[in-house]
Amino acid sequence: MATVEPIRWHNRQLHLLDQRLLPQQIRYNSYDTALEVAAAITTMVVRGAPAIGVSAAYGVVLSAQQHGDNRDAIAADIAHLAKARPTAINLHWALQQMQQRLESGATIDELTAAAIQIHADDIAANRKMGELGAALIETPSTAVLTHCNAGALATGGYGTALGVVRRGYSDGKICQLYADETRPWLQGARLTAWEMVQEQIPVTLIAEGAAASLMQQGNIGWVIVGSDRIVANGDVANKIGTYPLAIIARHHGVKFMVVAPTSTIDMSLESGSQIPIEQRSSDELLTLAGQPMAALGAEGWNPVFDVTPAALIDAIVTEKGVVEQPNREKMARLFTAAPADTPLAAPANVLV
Amino acid sequence: MATVEPIRWHNRQLHLLDQRLLPQQIRYNSYDTALEVAAAITTMVVRGAPAIGVSAAYGVVLSAQQHGDNRDAIAADIAHLAKARPTAINLHWALQQMQQRLESGATIDELTAAAIQIHADDIAANRKMGELGAALIETPSTAVLTHCNAGALATGGYGTALGVVRRGYSDGKICQLYADETRPWLQGARLTAWEMVQEQIPVTLIAEGAAASLMQQGNIGWVIVGSDRIVANGDVANKIGTYPLAIIARHHGVKFMVVAPTSTIDMSLESGSQIPIEQRSSDELLTLAGQPMAALGAEGWNPVFDVTPAALIDAIVTEKGVVEQPNREKMARLFTAAPADTPLAAPANVLV
Repeated sequence: MATVEPIRWHNRQLHLLDQRLLPQQIRYNSYDTALEVAAAITTMVVRGAPAIGVSAAYGVVLSAQQHGDNRDAIAADIAHLAKARPTAINLHWALQQMQQRLESGATIDELTAAAIQIHADDIAANRKMGELGAALIETPSTAVLTHCNAGALATGGYGTALGVVRRGYSDGKICQLYADETRPWLQGARLTAWEMVQEQIPVTLIAEGAAASLMQQGNIGWVIVGSDRIVANGDVANKIGTYPLAIIARHHGVKFMVVAPTSTIDMSLESGSQIPIEQRSSDELLTLAGQPMAALGAEGWNPVFDVTPAALIDAIVTEKGVVEQPNREKMARLFTAAPADTPLAAPANVLV
Repeated sequence: MATVEPIRWHNRQLHLLDQRLLPQQIRYNSYDTALEVAAAITTMVVRGAPAIGVSAAYGVVLSAQQHGDNRDAIAADIAHLAKARPTAINLHWALQQMQQRLESGATIDELTAAAIQIHADDIAANRKMGELGAALIETPSTAVLTHCNAGALATGGYGTALGVVRRGYSDGKICQLYADETRPWLQGARLTAWEMVQEQIPVTLIAEGAAASLMQQGNIGWVIVGSDRIVANGDVANKIGTYPLAIIARHHGVKFMVVAPTSTIDMSLESGSQIPIEQRSSDELLTLAGQPMAALGAEGWNPVFDVTPAALIDAIVTEKGVVEQPNREKMARLFTAAPADTPLAAPANVLV
């Protein structure tokens, strides 16, 4: 199995696979400062909520390497990193983890070890979620549909939604992945298809508009997606186009699974309407491959995330367990239940 | 008001605005034979169900000009035109009209007059539908959402769905058009936006995935679309992405209007599942602006139409009247009710 590594730490430098160039070019950019890392997040060299979090953790290490004991400079860098993109909460979660180490007087080596641990924990969480998510799929050998890229590229490695696909495919529970191309940034076409081809998992691209026809034909067992922020009542922010997919899945009786580590959960927000939704340039709609496409004078509205209400979600899969039919009470129990690394009988970490 | 003319008949030649080049280039191609016209339909120089029908009618004139009394050659041309694209029934309707004239011994001049009449009737039907459709919009000054291009470019001129938008905007009932960019061919971005800019109707492009968020915010009064074929029970074939739009409109309590001339209605088919759905090359998904985009080895599934069940449709607007909550009985009554050019009180040609 080919390994897709979006983030590498080597020789006190951060190396990011430039996801803007995939799949045509495989190029790693190297970063020496937190400000460069913040710019890489904003311009989507690296994207995907968990991958943004891991990158930001390494950004704090770079800041400490650059500024030494100058805590004000490091604090300014952290504030800058926190503003790189607004929706993915993993960014704030990772910065908070690193901030705590800084406040407790961690050395550069200890900070580096902490960032490496966040990175490794994310991959381990992905593998655990892959196992828990695949276990939910009862139909033998069904096709599944995903949106955007919640794969190895979107995480420390392995993937959330695509982690479930990887595990489900290897277990013989998933026979085929359909991938929304995911306009306007085409993460499905450029990233998800590439990841799947690397591992020889059959992948078929569709335009977003074709998902309902695919479900109408009875071809899809589950829709499986990632998330950029999940709030206390189980509402889920994810790539624009996820919410309509949940509506049409419910309309066709297709199950809807969200896969995300607990670092994606923001218990400080009561409902999805409070999640800040990033708006990106309308040029992503008005131009194509750098050329003007729409007539001069047309406007564009380009929110890049939407919010799927908990009521449309059949299961939220985290590394700490599965929440079926999520609601406020079950989400809260996720943080008090036994951790997933405690050996548990299969149903015991499913909160139904 | 600028006039958008997709189809011109001049000097015994058919001239088609090459819609593949819009909006960057405005270029008319000229055609002397039916086979050339068939190729223009297949390759989408001209597209949109009514525009395909009008073009095919002129194609029969070109065939008669070329082949004179050779009825076998003309019959072969008609058979060729009929296969140019499978889903839009207007193509068959127009060919049937011309066939009847041929069988009754029409001269070239009479055939030419018949094609010009089909063209003029289509524009007149569009204007009537614009009036009937706009009359359904009760909210003063609402925003509406459309999919693909059902405008002047898709018809003899003026448009079906966009005819309602033109009339609704001029009547002050519609303040703003949102247009799905409409992957993979981007009819919304390239054609609908261009038409609206020509007439200074405010237009905002969105990715298909953003339509649900727009409705969630309460910004949309109606979804208004065209159709390629409507069958006896009121099921509607239209551009891929229409069916999910109808599902999410119903989910949000947004009304859903289909606007199409009666030449789009195929009473010979009982339900939408019988409509042939065109599949186009997966290259439309796997490449972008002529360059490979998805990884080699990924597949694509590219059906270009879908079927919206009658139950999700609030109104079908034709030039003969409006069918609200369409079903088999009301669709049949459309063909027995008084024609729309008979003066009728407003509610009399609404079949509720």
